[in-house]
Amino acid sequence: MSHDRMERVRARMIEHEVDVLVLRPSSNLRYLADSARHGFLVITPDGPPAHVPDASSLIPVGARVAIDPQMPAHELLSIQERLGPQTLFASAEPLLAPLRMRKSDAEIAAMERAAIAADRAVAMAAELRWSGTTEREMARLLRLLLLETGHDEVTLVTVAAGEHSAAPYHRPTERVINPGDAVLVNIGGRHEGYCSDITRMFVVAEPPEDFEAMYSVVLAVHSAACEAVRPGVTAAEIDEVCRTAIAASGYGLFFVHRTGHGVGLDQFEPPYLTSEDQTVIEPGMTMSVQPAIYLPGLYGARIEDVVVCTDIGARRLNQSPRLLIVTDR
Amino acid sequence: MSHDRMERVRARMIEHEVDVLVLRPSSNLRYLADSARHGFLVITPDGPPAHVPDASSLIPVGARVAIDPQMPAHELLSIQERLGPQTLFASAEPLLAPLRMRKSDAEIAAMERAAIAADRAVAMAAELRWSGTTEREMARLLRLLLLETGHDEVTLVTVAAGEHSAAPYHRPTERVINPGDAVLVNIGGRHEGYCSDITRMFVVAEPPEDFEAMYSVVLAVHSAACEAVRPGVTAAEIDEVCRTAIAASGYGLFFVHRTGHGVGLDQFEPPYLTSEDQTVIEPGMTMSVQPAIYLPGLYGARIEDVVVCTDIGARRLNQSPRLLIVTDR
Repeated sequence: MSHDRMERVRARMIEHEVDVLVLRPSSNLRYLADSARHGFLVITPDGPPAHVPDASSLIPVGARVAIDPQMPAHELLSIQERLGPQTLFASAEPLLAPLRMRKSDAEIAAMERAAIAADRAVAMAAELRWSGTTEREMARLLRLLLLETGHDEVTLVTVAAGEHSAAPYHRPTERVINPGDAVLVNIGGRHEGYCSDITRMFVVAEPPEDFEAMYSVVLAVHSAACEAVRPGVTAAEIDEVCRTAIAASGYGLFFVHRTGHGVGLDQFEPPYLTSEDQTVIEPGMTMSVQPAIYLPGLYGARIEDVVVCTDIGARRLNQSPRLLIVTDR
Repeated sequence: MSHDRMERVRARMIEHEVDVLVLRPSSNLRYLADSARHGFLVITPDGPPAHVPDASSLIPVGARVAIDPQMPAHELLSIQERLGPQTLFASAEPLLAPLRMRKSDAEIAAMERAAIAADRAVAMAAELRWSGTTEREMARLLRLLLLETGHDEVTLVTVAAGEHSAAPYHRPTERVINPGDAVLVNIGGRHEGYCSDITRMFVVAEPPEDFEAMYSVVLAVHSAACEAVRPGVTAAEIDEVCRTAIAASGYGLFFVHRTGHGVGLDQFEPPYLTSEDQTVIEPGMTMSVQPAIYLPGLYGARIEDVVVCTDIGARRLNQSPRLLIVTDR
């Protein structure tokens, strides 16, 4: 399989007039070479790929070089310095993303197993006692649950209680979770190499005032956004459907991030469900759909599932119910 | 504390004639701004730091720009493209590393708590049944132990059994661990923001033939290398002490990596104990010391502790005994 992928990327190198592709240990290297070896993999349109400790020795001055988008800046700066200004560098993302976005059946099956493992972690979390525990301690328990359910690596754990749930990029703190809190829980991990990503809203004993009405808006918008995922639509159009639905409910100002993002070997990868991403969605593409409403100082709500585009529309890989999860009853 | 650090980095910017420093969410951002906010932090020698979604808008064409060494290449390439060839880019590492290398007392105390948590995970692992389990399953259990002992994040888990222990960058496989195997175990995680890093050798029921003699060489070399850590010595000199000691034992060809690396907010950070790193070691610097001998096809042995340089020499932060750990007895 790696061999086919390598041939396809080489064909794209010729098409895009790229002389050299430089990968480092990253999801791109795992995708193309099923390898996690240290050093750099230097790929040319012909000849065998070379695994070397120093990439610049294999790059001719004046070449057009595609760089692993995940390479740390200090490595790129060091390569640039050695090759000088005649050599042209660009991100390899346009070369690689179209291949990686379209998942094979085997990849989709792996993504589904990852999603179901995350669903199980959510179900187990619903059985825990939340009241009296800190966000940080709950985050620790959620990491354990991700590993217990077969994830090899935890990539993402957000626990945002009460007013913190209104902060979209909150990190767990020592805040104690109390009865009446809404808690935003977003977890994800790597499972057989592929990432899970799920967000559910928990409420401790009972929901805060007026929370359920707002939550039902997010739930309806989530359904609408999932239904917008089908072959031929653009990523931007899905984002537009989601944004329009939230605006129609009167909460438009409180949805402050993208509608979703690709998920696969990486937690965040193309396509991005934003107003700028013109990627045409095709069967086999997998992405998260994550509409949200954040009411500053009060609370927020987000629902996130990973879906795959099929010939007839989106199929949710997560099977966890999307209802509010009430704990401590 | 963040404020002092910011003032110090600004003084260094003037000294190094850097006009703009661009950080992204990374350990550098946490160090300087105690923040994990999305977007870029743009710092100039005067004026308040600016948190922006697009750094290039705040960089004057022709400026000298220091770039967060951990910025992904695609972000740097996009900034470079917008600013054109008159703007000069360099890694911010020379600016930041001298500050970050010297840990405060509070940082050293946090590193010590992280080390002791990792020691506890090793002690708990010694109680498990290793025979009949795969490397991959043991890796999963070790991740759980790291979280159980209070780590917030797992950054590193290597389990390399039998002949795999001779491969310094091995990743856990489905190989079943058997009685008579030597198993190299290297674990680390983030604990209160600071990283632990420990390597111990396990043997299942009994050591393989002739293993103990080789192990005692690694142990003696580890002591010698730790003793070489003191104020005024260079990182390269510590590496040289370690290399000379292994060579004297006849195993010189089988020590194929650096003697150690800085540990702190990052798992791997300056100084690097290599023949090239001329950093002068000072009190407060924390680093791993990890001599090893790898006998291809047979087995390997590595011992790794995190140490801090004090006025009178190295103090080991790990307190785990460095003896061979015999399991399944």
